[in-house]
Amino acid sequence: MDNHFTKALKEWQDVVGSVHASIHPEELKTFQNTTFQTDQKVLAVIKPGTREEVEKCVRVANTYKIPLYPVSTGKNWGYGSGVPTGPNNVILYLGRMNRIIDYHEDLAYVTVEPGVTQKDLYQYLIEQQSNLFMDVTGASESCSLIGNAVERGFGHTPYGDHFSFVCGFEVVLPTGEVIQTGLSHFRNAKASPVYRWGVGPFLDGLFSQSNLGIVTRMTFWLMPKPEQFEAFYCRVDSEKKLALIIDQLRPLRLSGILRSAVHIGNDYKVLNTFQRYPWDETNGQFPLKPQEMKKIAKKHKIGAWNVSGALYGTRFDVIQAKRKVSKALNGVGDKLVFLNDSKISFFQTCLKLIPWLRNSHLFRQLEILKPIYGLNLGIPTDTMMKSVYWRKKGDIENPMDPDRDRCGLIWLSAVAPLEGCHAQEIFQITKDILLEFKFEPMISVTMITERAMDFIISIVYDRDTPGQDLAAMNCHDKLLGYLTDEGYYPYRLGIQNMSKIKSHNPNYTDMLKKIKAVLDPNGIISPGRYEL
Amino acid sequence: MDNHFTKALKEWQDVVGSVHASIHPEELKTFQNTTFQTDQKVLAVIKPGTREEVEKCVRVANTYKIPLYPVSTGKNWGYGSGVPTGPNNVILYLGRMNRIIDYHEDLAYVTVEPGVTQKDLYQYLIEQQSNLFMDVTGASESCSLIGNAVERGFGHTPYGDHFSFVCGFEVVLPTGEVIQTGLSHFRNAKASPVYRWGVGPFLDGLFSQSNLGIVTRMTFWLMPKPEQFEAFYCRVDSEKKLALIIDQLRPLRLSGILRSAVHIGNDYKVLNTFQRYPWDETNGQFPLKPQEMKKIAKKHKIGAWNVSGALYGTRFDVIQAKRKVSKALNGVGDKLVFLNDSKISFFQTCLKLIPWLRNSHLFRQLEILKPIYGLNLGIPTDTMMKSVYWRKKGDIENPMDPDRDRCGLIWLSAVAPLEGCHAQEIFQITKDILLEFKFEPMISVTMITERAMDFIISIVYDRDTPGQDLAAMNCHDKLLGYLTDEGYYPYRLGIQNMSKIKSHNPNYTDMLKKIKAVLDPNGIISPGRYEL
Repeated sequence: MDNHFTKALKEWQDVVGSVHASIHPEELKTFQNTTFQTDQKVLAVIKPGTREEVEKCVRVANTYKIPLYPVSTGKNWGYGSGVPTGPNNVILYLGRMNRIIDYHEDLAYVTVEPGVTQKDLYQYLIEQQSNLFMDVTGASESCSLIGNAVERGFGHTPYGDHFSFVCGFEVVLPTGEVIQTGLSHFRNAKASPVYRWGVGPFLDGLFSQSNLGIVTRMTFWLMPKPEQFEAFYCRVDSEKKLALIIDQLRPLRLSGILRSAVHIGNDYKVLNTFQRYPWDETNGQFPLKPQEMKKIAKKHKIGAWNVSGALYGTRFDVIQAKRKVSKALNGVGDKLVFLNDSKISFFQTCLKLIPWLRNSHLFRQLEILKPIYGLNLGIPTDTMMKSVYWRKKGDIENPMDPDRDRCGLIWLSAVAPLEGCHAQEIFQITKDILLEFKFEPMISVTMITERAMDFIISIVYDRDTPGQDLAAMNCHDKLLGYLTDEGYYPYRLGIQNMSKIKSHNPNYTDMLKKIKAVLDPNGIISPGRYEL
Repeated sequence: MDNHFTKALKEWQDVVGSVHASIHPEELKTFQNTTFQTDQKVLAVIKPGTREEVEKCVRVANTYKIPLYPVSTGKNWGYGSGVPTGPNNVILYLGRMNRIIDYHEDLAYVTVEPGVTQKDLYQYLIEQQSNLFMDVTGASESCSLIGNAVERGFGHTPYGDHFSFVCGFEVVLPTGEVIQTGLSHFRNAKASPVYRWGVGPFLDGLFSQSNLGIVTRMTFWLMPKPEQFEAFYCRVDSEKKLALIIDQLRPLRLSGILRSAVHIGNDYKVLNTFQRYPWDETNGQFPLKPQEMKKIAKKHKIGAWNVSGALYGTRFDVIQAKRKVSKALNGVGDKLVFLNDSKISFFQTCLKLIPWLRNSHLFRQLEILKPIYGLNLGIPTDTMMKSVYWRKKGDIENPMDPDRDRCGLIWLSAVAPLEGCHAQEIFQITKDILLEFKFEPMISVTMITERAMDFIISIVYDRDTPGQDLAAMNCHDKLLGYLTDEGYYPYRLGIQNMSKIKSHNPNYTDMLKKIKAVLDPNGIISPGRYEL
């Protein structure tokens, strides 16, 4: 360890306390491991407890010109977890800053620090006997709200497009100064937590998918609990009907009948959420071939496509939306089911009376649907994390940790106009390339806004199987190349692909680099993140 | 004229053609006149016809270090029209760039240049027999869509908060390079017009309420025509009930029952939209005192507050929303009316059969409501412009031009959380100060989002009455001071107040200035606009 670094470490220890500034190998390992091959080494992990400590840590980093990599809770699964973009960074772990700072029931918002997880907020709302709920991602209970929002992640409810429902950031700049966005930098501005634009240029976007500052506080708008809630699930048996699903549902999304972010998963994706790889049926071979997948799908009544969404509103709204959704999916779907709380408690009562029902198809399907149903109601879950263990053999240790357990997961997203033709094209490209590389094409399509959809493609494998790390990355790279050639770009990047997509306009890149240089003259915040 | 400027002018003339680069006094006057006192002189007016010409004009400006002030159509009434923030600017008038570049019915968007006005798009949609409609502001038919959106203006429908429904900007930077925001700078990116965030930092906000670039193209999302439309108007006779109106309607706004931007105008504001100042009744004195206003209001059945909104959706949605709005305003409103197309044609038929009905109260009120009704349906109108002639005497020349006709208008906005207590407080401050300065307190409150409201306060006067320019500006300044002291900041600034509100965080201002300096090293785009 060089003298220079030792001095910096000493200063960081003085700021946060020695117990929160560590170079212990186990601690470092946490931020050197993700769900795919990386070789970035981490120098130390610093854990400030307050914004003031963040400011000081940043100043130390500037003095010694050692890069800091801020991480909220480090659960950015599939995109690199907490592993830095570049080598020899010091992790600035914000998980200790986990205060809920402000909450307003009537105006429906909450202000939090980066360490506040989905579960934290969920429990807080219960404690408050709140009439509001949050939008959650399926990722895990321990994901940071701010971490997800700054990466512009999404969830399942009408507030699904997270970056549309946040405001009033507090940001520590790369030189250590603190700013507030929106109206918050005006003294006593009453509308700070409710009005996002502020006066003058609107800056929130600068601090999303970037390395231009460290967001230490953010306000999230919450959704009032609807009078009525009903989820729907539709099985579509023909692979070719994806286009039809999209085109039939788009008008409902545009007209506001369907306010939630509808998710459409293919057979592989759904199978993956409730069981491990069928090693027995495949004689230990992979991938699971389409004809084998079809057999299993038939057995479990999984569709080639499985649509899940939810209806929110008054009793009237929901009755009407059910009718419209049924009509739209008529002739498209092979089985459409609506589910609400009373139906669920009815089934649960049945189960108590007739325990063998547990083995019936219907009840097994209900078990699968339960976490998705919960997500639509803003209840975070760890269930989806199991899916990352798809090709792992043996027991899963609790709490799950895909990084530690050498689960392989690379996520690749693609955003497209909400039209069937695009969906079918992306699906075809993806399916062919994933199978070519011997991975199961696990795909979910989210109708995220009224006009756009996100494809989330999962490359799931076992890092302990030799050659798979390389194969997965090659597969990812080829797929990314094909998709972008066709005009389908990711909505979000991971450390696996930050440097792999290119603007065709050098002026754009130049401008961003100029802004980076002026805000971060020493280049000490997350160098290379989003190519800045 | 100095040699330096002559050379620059020659170069601009070479770029746009001599006929489009003018120093004719009449031309200059257009951009030296607004609806309040200013003394900024303009050096020339340059009118590029294409983006390429804009780029070249910007390069010339950099060479000669002469500031350019981009103006879309120059109809920024109440905020300075087309008059620059600083002295000795050259106007870069973008009105000739009026192409509608792209239009997509299924995905509901349109891409336009800055010269495209509200009327242009309205007529285009009719020509296309489009099933979509746009959100319009009440300002005038000839307002630029882009000009309004970059200032983050608002309108009357569910797409009322304009900056929430735009994306994919093309921007000429202050050094002459062109960039595209969102996904548009990636080759062939299919989702450019439908997905706003792009990959990496989201930059649209930088180019709103700023001087960091010249927006030469923008995509607007349009609203599908609802199955059913119904407008509502509610008269509230007690001034003190403003708080109640807000608190009763907020839950409907938050739950999505009320999707439109509800407007609430006070008596003075409504009177102002349909008649000139009552010089006779007041013996030529002003202001119109509250007790006189009350008398007139009683005669015309104008409320102390007048709520106008609209319901969009299916037949069911509208029936239900009517019920909920009626319930919410029960005991608050003194008269609640719903209006739809069939009612209107029924009334029109009646009018043909019984012409004397024209003089009845009901029909006079319908005449007043018609333009507001149209605004709720995305039909632009010039009617509201008449209100600026409030204190002018004599005939109004057509086409109306408040700048030319020396109408006095200063607009001041204030944004607040959507709670009754704030509304009542802002109202009281405003009323007292405007009356103190002998202006009628004309106020409209817009429930612009689910959580915030904008107060638009109009100081309307006659610039030809000696002393009024000064009185109006003093009144504005005092009001601005009181409002910001109480924590109510403007959502938008005009050239009358760019330098009058201050961030309490010098780091914020520094950061913005650094970004300005790096993007516009010669400070040649709109110096001083939004204090940059």
